[in-house]
Amino acid sequence: MVAIITIDIGGTSMRAASYPSTGIQPINRHKISTESPIETVFERLVNLIHVIWPVNHEVAAISVASAGPLNPKTGFIYDAPNIPGWKDFPLGDKLREIFPVPIFIGNDANLAAMGEWKYGNGIDHSDLIFLTISTGIGGGIICNNALMEGHNGLAAELGHITVQPDGLVCSCGKLGHLEALASGPAIVAYVRLSLLSGQTSTLHLDKEFSAYDVALAAKTGDQLAVRAYAHAGFYLGQALASLIHIFNPSIIILGGGVAQSGALLFEPMLEKMYASVMEPSYLQDLEIVPARLGDDAGLLGALALARQKLQNS
Amino acid sequence: MVAIITIDIGGTSMRAASYPSTGIQPINRHKISTESPIETVFERLVNLIHVIWPVNHEVAAISVASAGPLNPKTGFIYDAPNIPGWKDFPLGDKLREIFPVPIFIGNDANLAAMGEWKYGNGIDHSDLIFLTISTGIGGGIICNNALMEGHNGLAAELGHITVQPDGLVCSCGKLGHLEALASGPAIVAYVRLSLLSGQTSTLHLDKEFSAYDVALAAKTGDQLAVRAYAHAGFYLGQALASLIHIFNPSIIILGGGVAQSGALLFEPMLEKMYASVMEPSYLQDLEIVPARLGDDAGLLGALALARQKLQNS
Repeated sequence: MVAIITIDIGGTSMRAASYPSTGIQPINRHKISTESPIETVFERLVNLIHVIWPVNHEVAAISVASAGPLNPKTGFIYDAPNIPGWKDFPLGDKLREIFPVPIFIGNDANLAAMGEWKYGNGIDHSDLIFLTISTGIGGGIICNNALMEGHNGLAAELGHITVQPDGLVCSCGKLGHLEALASGPAIVAYVRLSLLSGQTSTLHLDKEFSAYDVALAAKTGDQLAVRAYAHAGFYLGQALASLIHIFNPSIIILGGGVAQSGALLFEPMLEKMYASVMEPSYLQDLEIVPARLGDDAGLLGALALARQKLQNS
Repeated sequence: MVAIITIDIGGTSMRAASYPSTGIQPINRHKISTESPIETVFERLVNLIHVIWPVNHEVAAISVASAGPLNPKTGFIYDAPNIPGWKDFPLGDKLREIFPVPIFIGNDANLAAMGEWKYGNGIDHSDLIFLTISTGIGGGIICNNALMEGHNGLAAELGHITVQPDGLVCSCGKLGHLEALASGPAIVAYVRLSLLSGQTSTLHLDKEFSAYDVALAAKTGDQLAVRAYAHAGFYLGQALASLIHIFNPSIIILGGGVAQSGALLFEPMLEKMYASVMEPSYLQDLEIVPARLGDDAGLLGALALARQKLQNS
């Protein structure tokens, strides 16, 4: 019996699963926190792989979805801001030193796109855009029936499309990127800045609140909270229209916590998107749907990557 | 002897050439105006193909670069605003009724990208962005070593990326697209609006002038003309940074008349581009170069398309 081990490494938690040669029912799965006071993140990863290694199976490959930017050809992590020590970190080479099996590594958002394409809501689409909206905004693109990686594997950083030339500072330090205007923290910042300028709301400056709290307030009729989502939705819609002109996809899949806020975000998003698309042919047959795989998107994307690589090797 | 006939149809002129089975030296070539008082554009096209049909050669295919948007899978023209009567026009089917050879049709900017990739400045690159800046702004993308066409063949309309959410009206009717801020007419409009608001320049409201005239004025020290190119360059740089995050290309090729203005446009463009890119790895090995094929880009792109299609058939 042959198995594939897949890992999804995020800033908060590290998930692992092993899968049989077909299907998407895991043989086993495990989840731990990414950081620990007694081990480095890499030591925790190695131990997690040992824990998940299935008995009675030969392991055909280890496939890892990691925060990036990273180079998927080599598994070299340029800079994963949420993972201590993973700057210029040769993750692929270090895993290859320890485990005598093929190692595949991909950007987590790219692999989530691949997971939705192979096992989620994007099955049978050749041109797919996946956008995940949560603490950050990431993406993945399937084009011509293949994952788009780019020259150094850095493609599809869709949170870093500039949507407002003189806009707010992004987490990356540059101005007016989509992530600075439409991510969860951007929605919270909109409310906090509005409160500072004297607007009223059921949300208060002296309390911590999240984008989820803003959505709850909006659903009880808080108009500032509604405007905060409309503002984010406007820029998402603008960016989606640009992506539609660039890729002419047949499906757009929206994942991440912020995308779960429903009409509150999607109505203003679609309004701006429709208002910005130049030609109705782009919208013929275009599906816009939520992601299906949820927390398993990274694991299943890593599985899809490994199966594709093993098939082509 | 086998030949390929290629045609490039623009709003002003229609070019045709025939090429032997290898190389890019045409057997013959011809250029006529697109419109005439005594024939429709399609009749002119058919006659042009008869004129260019090479004696002593078997014709393996006719390959056409046309203004779009169009569907390259069927050769159906959705809407070519500069060509009278070509709205919902089944160009491919109509040519197939007349000529008993394979007919290939592509968007002119997409095929210009393909021409630069196969025969121009983009040889050996797998991930290439081509941007043409003249009366309009068009583009073509090579990704994963293939021309990116999208679901209905409408991909790479790079002039219709939104760069300014509340920006000027674009030729397509929508707001703040790159074409509305950085095309030749946008540069002229910037000068005219500035003159209307009382700014001074060697250019005058009571005379017609082109983006080329604005460039000439800038080169003699006209500060309003310099600012007009800086304004266009700013938005081009912003759009290029977004495209770099989206595609991670190894080369960007700039064509079209406006791109020939040199440092006047490129310095502000590169300044904004560098200021907007999140991570230096994107700029490692990135080449930014002018187009090489000039007026022949469409013909040679159509040639590249035909050779690729014939090879794969």
